[in-house]
Amino acid sequence: MATTTWILSPSPASFKGREMPIEKFRIRCSSVSLNTRSEPQPVTTFVKAFAPATVANLGPGFDFLGCAVDGLGDIVSVRVDPQVHPGEVHISDITGHAPNKLSKNPLWNCAGIAAIEVMKMLAIRSVGLSLSLQKGLPLGSGLGSSAASAAAAAVAVNEMFGKRLGVDELVLASLKSEEKVSGYHADNVAPSIMGGFVLIRSYEPLELIELKFPEEKELYFVLVSPEFEAPTKKMRAALPGEIGMAHHVWNCSQAGALVASVLQGDVVGLGKALSSDKIVEPRRAPLIPGMEAVKRAALEAGAFGCTISGAGPTAVAVIDDELTGHAIAKHMIHAFLHHGNLQASAKVLQLDRLGARRIHD
Amino acid sequence: MATTTWILSPSPASFKGREMPIEKFRIRCSSVSLNTRSEPQPVTTFVKAFAPATVANLGPGFDFLGCAVDGLGDIVSVRVDPQVHPGEVHISDITGHAPNKLSKNPLWNCAGIAAIEVMKMLAIRSVGLSLSLQKGLPLGSGLGSSAASAAAAAVAVNEMFGKRLGVDELVLASLKSEEKVSGYHADNVAPSIMGGFVLIRSYEPLELIELKFPEEKELYFVLVSPEFEAPTKKMRAALPGEIGMAHHVWNCSQAGALVASVLQGDVVGLGKALSSDKIVEPRRAPLIPGMEAVKRAALEAGAFGCTISGAGPTAVAVIDDELTGHAIAKHMIHAFLHHGNLQASAKVLQLDRLGARRIHD
Repeated sequence: MATTTWILSPSPASFKGREMPIEKFRIRCSSVSLNTRSEPQPVTTFVKAFAPATVANLGPGFDFLGCAVDGLGDIVSVRVDPQVHPGEVHISDITGHAPNKLSKNPLWNCAGIAAIEVMKMLAIRSVGLSLSLQKGLPLGSGLGSSAASAAAAAVAVNEMFGKRLGVDELVLASLKSEEKVSGYHADNVAPSIMGGFVLIRSYEPLELIELKFPEEKELYFVLVSPEFEAPTKKMRAALPGEIGMAHHVWNCSQAGALVASVLQGDVVGLGKALSSDKIVEPRRAPLIPGMEAVKRAALEAGAFGCTISGAGPTAVAVIDDELTGHAIAKHMIHAFLHHGNLQASAKVLQLDRLGARRIHD
Repeated sequence: MATTTWILSPSPASFKGREMPIEKFRIRCSSVSLNTRSEPQPVTTFVKAFAPATVANLGPGFDFLGCAVDGLGDIVSVRVDPQVHPGEVHISDITGHAPNKLSKNPLWNCAGIAAIEVMKMLAIRSVGLSLSLQKGLPLGSGLGSSAASAAAAAVAVNEMFGKRLGVDELVLASLKSEEKVSGYHADNVAPSIMGGFVLIRSYEPLELIELKFPEEKELYFVLVSPEFEAPTKKMRAALPGEIGMAHHVWNCSQAGALVASVLQGDVVGLGKALSSDKIVEPRRAPLIPGMEAVKRAALEAGAFGCTISGAGPTAVAVIDDELTGHAIAKHMIHAFLHHGNLQASAKVLQLDRLGARRIHD
């Protein structure tokens, strides 16, 4: 079986998640939980969880497809803390990338919001938690930084209380965080939690399709991040309001080809589909200095395909061997410098097939 | 391996097939063939070929996805005929559905055009052929009637001369026919020739992705055709010129889900995706009296999904067992009568996995 479908039969509250004000959602969510669940106890006093970076959009998969990449991500530790008011979360410290740019107020922190949501779903009201966030991911890079923080926090809190919530609930909890930071989109949080490639089929109800990339196949992502700030909101404003039928049909067919390539393990086909977006990439690429030249450089260096990761500014190329991946990375870095006047750094990473998980050290 | 990709490295002529006037294409095609191929001789004096009906669009697969259905289609017989000018095709007779509506001039007959194209590709100039067409498919039903005639003719002529052409060339030959009749779209001819589900990835060059539906899975198409003429051109004129981003993303994600469901053999998911089109079906369904009620009736009777087949007026529903299929068919016929005031007939058919083939009787 090549794919698995996750369907959530939502609680009355989450059914309307998108239109409902956050506070209203929370109140309802708590009341549902209180009425139907007994409060679980912590199974341990300390949990550390890792959640991987993600590449969303993948060209024609705009706003509904994403995948997780291995070896890069955020770490959240949670600790039972008698100093913290029961049922609440305290953020004790933030380390790693740009710690001063992130709020320690849990209601304004991606990890904090997701942790609180999971506690509400579990109806935790007699234990307080202290949370520590290690940002392995830079902010605003197009690699799902906020999603990784939320996913790691959601998984950590769920592990703390005996893993009572399923994947779909963890995605919903993390979505509350994404909603506040960058919009109600699951194409980063779902793959960060589930690993691999995930297609977001619908939000009401939330329905996720896991697209299994064959185990025996090699797939490398060349991720090149320039020193440039591409705010998600600005990139979203660049999108066309209306799309002509010919472009719509083209992108739809490429989205279908992308899904087929993933399930088949056809990296060449995947690259070709990744590169084929005629709707979003042409609007966004010119906003990232050098991006068009970077894509050309990647393809000339042998990449099977290249596009913008998420809302940018990271460029993502795909290839089936690591050495070529590093050569492609050099050409892409060079192109960012010479055509965009931007310093850039690169990583060559494999698909993360596990998703967010507890780690021990 | 779940999918196979067919890529054609086109001849200089077929590269520009879409923009080039037909005659220009033909001249170039002939000259290429004459220069590079020796003329094959017939391996037999008579060939009969069957090509299946097809369901194109499949909801969000609009204009790039189609599949073949078993047990319904057109039959073309070709015979070496010394009375026919060498290198030419004569249509001797047309039987079955609406024979008087079809031209016997091979340049204006779907089977004739495809047969001539195959002869040109093979550089046949010393043998004339007589062609007989049995229309198993009604015209303008939305079941790929013209495509089945073209596919059967292309395969018959190719068999006659020792099967020198591959699938991709047969699709291109049949596309010349479709171009003249209903537009340059391969979503009927490709599945009619190849069988199963086929995704049209691109036209220049022609690139087709075969989506293998698992052998062990059951899939039934309930095809209900009302007595109503829905001309392809009128249905095409009903399409929106511009599409909003939200609907684009929705349909793209459903197209991805459709492809995943086919490869996974998930008939429930396939039905859901089939039913989910927010762009084309809402514009076309109101032009077919009763169609919206027919869809509701199909779903209420247990169908996993329902939409318009091709450009209509046939309605197609999917289910995983034949008996339920017949019950669904009854409800759909009833809905056409009571809500559209149209008589309708139904068939419950399986996926055709073979495509156009030689038959013996």
